[in-house]
Amino acid sequence: MPAPAEGARTRRTGSTRRQFLLGGAVAGAGAVAAVGVDLALNRRQETPVTPAAPMNGENTVPFFGVHQAGVDTDAQAHGVFVALDLHGDVDRVALTRLLRILTDDAARLTQGKPALADSEPELSHAPARLTVTFGFGPGLVARASGSGPAWLSPLPAFRVDQLRPEFSDGDLLLQIAGDDPLTVAHATRMLLKDARGFADVRWTQQGFRRAYGTERPGTTMRNLFGQVDGTTNPRPGTDDFDEVVWTTDGWLAGGTGMVVRRIRMDLDKWDRLDRSGRDASVGRTLANGAPLTGTDEFDEPDFEAKTSIGFPVIPQFAHMRRARGDGSERIFRRAYNYDERPTGTQVSDSGLIFVSFQADIERQFTPMQRRLDELDLLNEWTTPIGSAVFAVPPGCAEDGFIGDTLLT
Amino acid sequence: MPAPAEGARTRRTGSTRRQFLLGGAVAGAGAVAAVGVDLALNRRQETPVTPAAPMNGENTVPFFGVHQAGVDTDAQAHGVFVALDLHGDVDRVALTRLLRILTDDAARLTQGKPALADSEPELSHAPARLTVTFGFGPGLVARASGSGPAWLSPLPAFRVDQLRPEFSDGDLLLQIAGDDPLTVAHATRMLLKDARGFADVRWTQQGFRRAYGTERPGTTMRNLFGQVDGTTNPRPGTDDFDEVVWTTDGWLAGGTGMVVRRIRMDLDKWDRLDRSGRDASVGRTLANGAPLTGTDEFDEPDFEAKTSIGFPVIPQFAHMRRARGDGSERIFRRAYNYDERPTGTQVSDSGLIFVSFQADIERQFTPMQRRLDELDLLNEWTTPIGSAVFAVPPGCAEDGFIGDTLLT
Ligand code: HEM
Ligand code: HEM
Repeated sequence: MPAPAEGARTRRTGSTRRQFLLGGAVAGAGAVAAVGVDLALNRRQETPVTPAAPMNGENTVPFFGVHQAGVDTDAQAHGVFVALDLHGDVDRVALTRLLRILTDDAARLTQGKPALADSEPELSHAPARLTVTFGFGPGLVARASGSGPAWLSPLPAFRVDQLRPEFSDGDLLLQIAGDDPLTVAHATRMLLKDARGFADVRWTQQGFRRAYGTERPGTTMRNLFGQVDGTTNPRPGTDDFDEVVWTTDGWLAGGTGMVVRRIRMDLDKWDRLDRSGRDASVGRTLANGAPLTGTDEFDEPDFEAKTSIGFPVIPQFAHMRRARGDGSERIFRRAYNYDERPTGTQVSDSGLIFVSFQADIERQFTPMQRRLDELDLLNEWTTPIGSAVFAVPPGCAEDGFIGDTLLT
Repeated sequence: MPAPAEGARTRRTGSTRRQFLLGGAVAGAGAVAAVGVDLALNRRQETPVTPAAPMNGENTVPFFGVHQAGVDTDAQAHGVFVALDLHGDVDRVALTRLLRILTDDAARLTQGKPALADSEPELSHAPARLTVTFGFGPGLVARASGSGPAWLSPLPAFRVDQLRPEFSDGDLLLQIAGDDPLTVAHATRMLLKDARGFADVRWTQQGFRRAYGTERPGTTMRNLFGQVDGTTNPRPGTDDFDEVVWTTDGWLAGGTGMVVRRIRMDLDKWDRLDRSGRDASVGRTLANGAPLTGTDEFDEPDFEAKTSIGFPVIPQFAHMRRARGDGSERIFRRAYNYDERPTGTQVSDSGLIFVSFQADIERQFTPMQRRLDELDLLNEWTTPIGSAVFAVPPGCAEDGFIGDTLLT
């Protein structure tokens, strides 16, 4: 229910120029007309300068391809994660039908077209970089009478875990991500409506990052601790990324392994830690994410550097050092913040939907998580409360469907 | 955790031109350098064309003024509504202290500055049109030993209501709205931290509209039924708006009355209704929100028009006709969609955080709601599950605080 023009109270740099352009025209016109002109100009100022620069609403990420979208896609502002449990009677044939339907929905919705029998087609017209990414849990692969990769099973138990079933496991994961929350809500609903004859919702998680337009594209996200989070990620489009992320084996070739962990962040406790303690917990500054041995976010950390009294500048148990280990395990993180309606006396119910993609979960993720489980300063303020593992199949061709390498 | 450049898979109209501009330079450079150049150009393409057009993250809405911001402000993408209950021992003096602190927080945060003792100052730097709007419930006015307007009390009971205490009433409302969800989350937390010595959270509601950049500014929002919602609203900046919204009496002069109702929308039931039934329920088309007697969203509806067999084209019980009545009551609606994590077998838990501003709730809102309670086709698919009423005090000067007309 917005007014058709920008609110009178928004301060924009352009206003001086606008007033100049209007000049005497406004002075000469009646008050109402002047308001009209002003609103029209206000409007023009917000819209793209040339037709060649589309609104973000029109931007699409291709659906068909070697890989599924939503992995190497620059992370969108909103991410919804839904894990489904297949009904007991869903066999290989029914599973194929389900995946064909959902593939068709996703292919349409992500391109700004209504799904077949879309109940609210008008909500499909602004994809705003919508992607739908499918992940297969162990149960789904079994139902397909397929054999999954060795790592496709719940992670080993970690001491830090306080896992809750309502945020763990699942047969089929849908990651629905886009820059517009209304589009994401509608796409989620369309997919779930088509899935409900085959599967029940096991859990849903909703997360966010910076909105489109808030910061320059490519700015590393911040999490709710205020940390710059994602600096050392491999870069999509590089060989390094391809090697870390994409699997080359069997039906999963072109796909990847996905870990989704819901990690509660105790913001109240975090607030009681002073600034240098916070910087030390990761080994990077809160100010700009630079390593404690550098000044710039992307400076290479010097793990050997010592303080004047001989302690390591980047503490032994700093999250960054522990996560990196000897550097032989790498993962690609694509997390979302969550901030739910607090209940009772909570001031917040916040954390990270930690999402990582890697070709081999057992070889790349598990040793790292084990190291962090043993020692990581950050454990003092974080608690994993959900955990799930999925095989993300490759993308498909226009006449195929997601999962066709497993099911045909 | 984004890559520092737009994902390779995003399709943008500008790419042809970019390739043209690069020309032989790319062909001549090594692959890595070429990628670098391409990324840099990609980046530039997303950023504003001139420094005069700031990223939305830098846009601010002035805090101080005759009216509070967040009423006539073009509605932002994200809205959080928090109702607080004052502790039993909070007297007039303590209340004044609380409001001074929260005013100071809001004044800073909305201008992109950290709050005093901000625990995560880096999360304050991108206001993205953040506003904080305060509303006073009957309990707060009593605590101030003030006398509120006659309409400041819970609405009368309506037959359609299925109100739940966890979404109803409250002493102090904070409406925290902005285009960036991380900024909104941080501002909410800062305010609640400063409030917790004085008050407990009674309820929180989180809503959304279109993201910044999805559509041209001024496009009327759509709700989760897919309806164009807000067409007939008075326009901020007009005399009409001022008359509908702003109060002129006593300590509330320059303020307004605020109704917040959480209205569940049964999307599954709605989906079983055919398209013409949906259009009829409101008296406007889903396609573009035009009245059934017109073709354009802003066409004036013709309530007298009859079909060839003599029925009114806009049904007698259509929401629009019933809400309008004889046109003597007017309100300004500024609603947010909500879409919560569904639980159990729910496919969705969705609806509208209905928010309306009007100078006199009893005179403007209540008769309208009574009419809708008696008869409104839309009642078949909507259920109010929360309700609260607040007096929104006027804005304040730089040396004042929100509520100073009541408390000093
Ligand atoms: C809420 C929980 C977590 C928070 C707040 C967090 C935060 C951070 C931050 C601020 C950094 C430094 C900047 C960067 O390179 O991104 C970082 C690095 C990293 N984190 Fe986490 N993290 C969390 C959980 C995890 C988990 C569960 C894993 C994997 C098991 C993980 C793996 C990594 C890796 C691999 C790095 C890069 C280390 C390097 O420099 O090579 N993090 N994390
Ligand atoms: C979930 C519940 C509701 C939905 C989905 C809804 C939807 C709509 C739609 C689609 C319109 C037509 C376009 C427009 O002018 O905005 C409309 C108009 C209107 N609605 Fe609602 N509405 C709801 C609840 C309410 C409530 C509770 C009130 C006030 C008690 C209300 C008051 C109005 C008014 C005053 C109009 C304009 C009527 C006119 O043309 O003069 N609505 N609503």
